[in-house]
Amino acid sequence: MIGGIDIDTKYRPIEWLGNSVRILDQTQLPLREVYIETSDFMEVASAIRNMKIRGAPAIGVAAAFGIALGALSVSSNVNATYHIQLSKIIDIIRNTRPTARNLFYTVERMNNLVSKIGEYSSLKKAIVQEALNIQNEEIKYSFNICQFGADLIQDGMNILTHCNTGPLATTGYGTALGIIKFAHYQKKNIMVFVDETRPLFQGSRLTVWELKKEGIPFSLITDSMAGAVMYQNKINLVIVGADCIAANGDTANKIGTYSLAVLSKIHGIPFIVAAPTSTIDISRKNGKDIIIEERNADEIIKYRGIPISLEDIKVYNPAFDVTPAKYISAIVTERGIIRKPSRKNVLEIMMNNN
Amino acid sequence: MIGGIDIDTKYRPIEWLGNSVRILDQTQLPLREVYIETSDFMEVASAIRNMKIRGAPAIGVAAAFGIALGALSVSSNVNATYHIQLSKIIDIIRNTRPTARNLFYTVERMNNLVSKIGEYSSLKKAIVQEALNIQNEEIKYSFNICQFGADLIQDGMNILTHCNTGPLATTGYGTALGIIKFAHYQKKNIMVFVDETRPLFQGSRLTVWELKKEGIPFSLITDSMAGAVMYQNKINLVIVGADCIAANGDTANKIGTYSLAVLSKIHGIPFIVAAPTSTIDISRKNGKDIIIEERNADEIIKYRGIPISLEDIKVYNPAFDVTPAKYISAIVTERGIIRKPSRKNVLEIMMNNN
Repeated sequence: MIGGIDIDTKYRPIEWLGNSVRILDQTQLPLREVYIETSDFMEVASAIRNMKIRGAPAIGVAAAFGIALGALSVSSNVNATYHIQLSKIIDIIRNTRPTARNLFYTVERMNNLVSKIGEYSSLKKAIVQEALNIQNEEIKYSFNICQFGADLIQDGMNILTHCNTGPLATTGYGTALGIIKFAHYQKKNIMVFVDETRPLFQGSRLTVWELKKEGIPFSLITDSMAGAVMYQNKINLVIVGADCIAANGDTANKIGTYSLAVLSKIHGIPFIVAAPTSTIDISRKNGKDIIIEERNADEIIKYRGIPISLEDIKVYNPAFDVTPAKYISAIVTERGIIRKPSRKNVLEIMMNNN
Repeated sequence: MIGGIDIDTKYRPIEWLGNSVRILDQTQLPLREVYIETSDFMEVASAIRNMKIRGAPAIGVAAAFGIALGALSVSSNVNATYHIQLSKIIDIIRNTRPTARNLFYTVERMNNLVSKIGEYSSLKKAIVQEALNIQNEEIKYSFNICQFGADLIQDGMNILTHCNTGPLATTGYGTALGIIKFAHYQKKNIMVFVDETRPLFQGSRLTVWELKKEGIPFSLITDSMAGAVMYQNKINLVIVGADCIAANGDTANKIGTYSLAVLSKIHGIPFIVAAPTSTIDISRKNGKDIIIEERNADEIIKYRGIPISLEDIKVYNPAFDVTPAKYISAIVTERGIIRKPSRKNVLEIMMNNN
């Protein structure tokens, strides 16, 4: 019971256990709930790379715990050596995925400590504490996002969402999906259209799993159906998360988001992005500065090892696309709502760090 | 060698063998090339229903051969009894799928014979001959479509296509994909982006298979990537087939087509539909009059029997959507190109039956 709302936080994508972490392997969902427990930072790096844990805020937290495990694992008690080895570990974590802003946000915070604290045992403690801080902040921020965002949802709305943005993606209450959950807790009579989200089916595997746990009514569609469903006047609002937001509000999110934003515009449907400010990178002027990860062809030509298409063909598999700010009605952050995002009002909220 | 162009017609989705038909089971492609040989019209009906044969023109031909097998199978030599039994068979074939216009076009032609020819053995012969006529016409028409359409493709173009519209879908040379092939035979240096086409992957399973056989360069993407690829200025033309075209040019085609048409408009990319006039139904005033088939949830929540999502969830699975004529730059038919389709110019080409 938080803020008068009963919230299910009984599943966490990642948990710190003192000397190890416990990761829910999201690639196995919804068929099996399998947990990995490890004290090896390399296993955390590989879990991020292989998307056993995914979603920008959750990646940020996983990176923090990965670096914390790494910090604990360095055995040198010579300060200079300790620093060199820890920096290598931070680099390994940094290089797991290229787009999710929260990963670099975590790395920046950890590097900040590294540059400030010379003594290895104090640094070790500080790194672990900072990792826990990052998780606690994400949980708190996602709660604020859900509260601000739920105000945008009216009783009786049909809401389309893409990919997965619930607790699995954030370690907290969720961003876009968290807002949907809060609106449901507020007894608003909502219905959710879930895009399956090819190629990795985060919609049909993860969002469906989370909505079913919450008892929120939904209908699963393929990504290609979203336009037709909008044309049938069945969608009142589209709400998605973000992997990286540039200073002008241009937003990188799961591939397919751009198409949904354009289709929303054409059909006069508000298009909302929900993300903590840890996803905003003001060093990137606009969407062109965001690096888009390209992933393996196998994600498209196979499903769980079973061939769909031919082998050895050319596949283009960008994991994200960039939606220009002009298609975004609002960005919901933990500090408030940025309406009609622009360089001016994005920077305004980033400066307003209270 | 046809019309100076070397065409590969060595695979046919369906062939008449005198007293039986041979159907290439497209659900098994591209993993296996499995043929079904049957003289049972019920097996043909089931092959249409289960999409072992699909694509509006190919469905029209399969329906014709199914009715022909049915006509051969009725043993009564009493004219009235023969007519009653044949009519039941035609009804079974008619009820296999609800959207593909060519199915009803075949049924109308067959019913026309039934109403004209009283004597059962003459009717039997006429039905078989009409089935062969329908196939020969489709082959001839698709050749004309390819010739007209190839003129729209310029050297160096990148072309996006959706679903499958090659020989597999038409029994002839293809419609949208046939045009692409002809442009390739004309030595135009083209590249094709293939949408995988969820839920049944006709793009990644069938179009990829056909393009690879032809040696045409292509890149496979998910349906959700089309918008992002357009935004990157990588697409010069979009070309798709059709399942039913209303009198005003509104076009039902594989789900996802509507989204592509809207995205094409926004990005200033010509959006072309290619279909024989047998796909046009002037009795349907506009897209609202077209019946859209909804198919089983399993197509979305499973792949070849392997679960993707949870069981027992609500799924919306329309097989087609309707693209309003205003989004269509041109419809390429065997009688010529309908530019800026409207009731006026669609009817004009339908009356021009030379």
